Amino acid sequence: MADTGRVVAAYWAAAEARDWAAFGALVSEDVVYEAPQSRERVRGRAAYLAFNEQGFPGAWHLVVERIVSGDRDAASMVAFTDESGTQHGLCFFGLDDQGRISRITDFWPEPYEPPPSRAHLADRY
Amino acid sequence: MADTGRVVAAYWAAAEARDWAAFGALVSEDVVYEAPQSRERVRGRAAYLAFNEQGFPGAWHLVVERIVSGDRDAASMVAFTDESGTQHGLCFFGLDDQGRISRITDFWPEPYEPPPSRAHLADRY
Repeated sequence: MADTGRVVAAYWAAAEARDWAAFGALVSEDVVYEAPQSRERVRGRAAYLAFNEQGFPGAWHLVVERIVSGDRDAASMVAFTDESGTQHGLCFFGLDDQGRISRITDFWPEPYEPPPSRAHLADRY
Repeated sequence: MADTGRVVAAYWAAAEARDWAAFGALVSEDVVYEAPQSRERVRGRAAYLAFNEQGFPGAWHLVVERIVSGDRDAASMVAFTDESGTQHGLCFFGLDDQGRISRITDFWPEPYEPPPSRAHLADRY
């Protein structure tokens, strides 16, 4: 796994541990977080720490399922579990010259039923 | 961009062009496609070609927004537009020894409103 993958693995480990000091050390001072589904945007390390520490209370847990490590970017698939169940989270990361996470684009897809028109074209699991 | 990224770029270019011969040449004979949201699974090149060619009719278009290229894997973010609007598609890819796509995990997140409890922690765009 390339360095970018190790940074992303450490980011998720810090989040799971609620180790906000370690989490903060992995992101740039001017990190920008965006969630295209909700059109939420958070700018800067202090605001991003507050968003994570205060915005997601409760006894959630996450498991990293996959990390793709690029040269200066990465993507992750995590399974996030809380009292309402388990959901996939998909994140795309950009890293700065110091190897810190400077750009995060975050997606949280929900289950859906496929249209009957393509039922004969796929199995269900 | 690494070779994995070029393969994924060619995959999306072939889909956008409805060039199913080119599309099929980029995936393994035993490709496995999974959509965790709908729990759809398609096994094998012929079935996967039919799924794409017949399962998604109409005048859709897609634009590749980002590709993360790993050594043997990749991830992409595309903007997919049809008559109902534009939606992000996120895909994670695994490649075989011949550089063909052998594993595809596909997500289509929908817009949502964030909870009021974190409204003070993020801007909206």
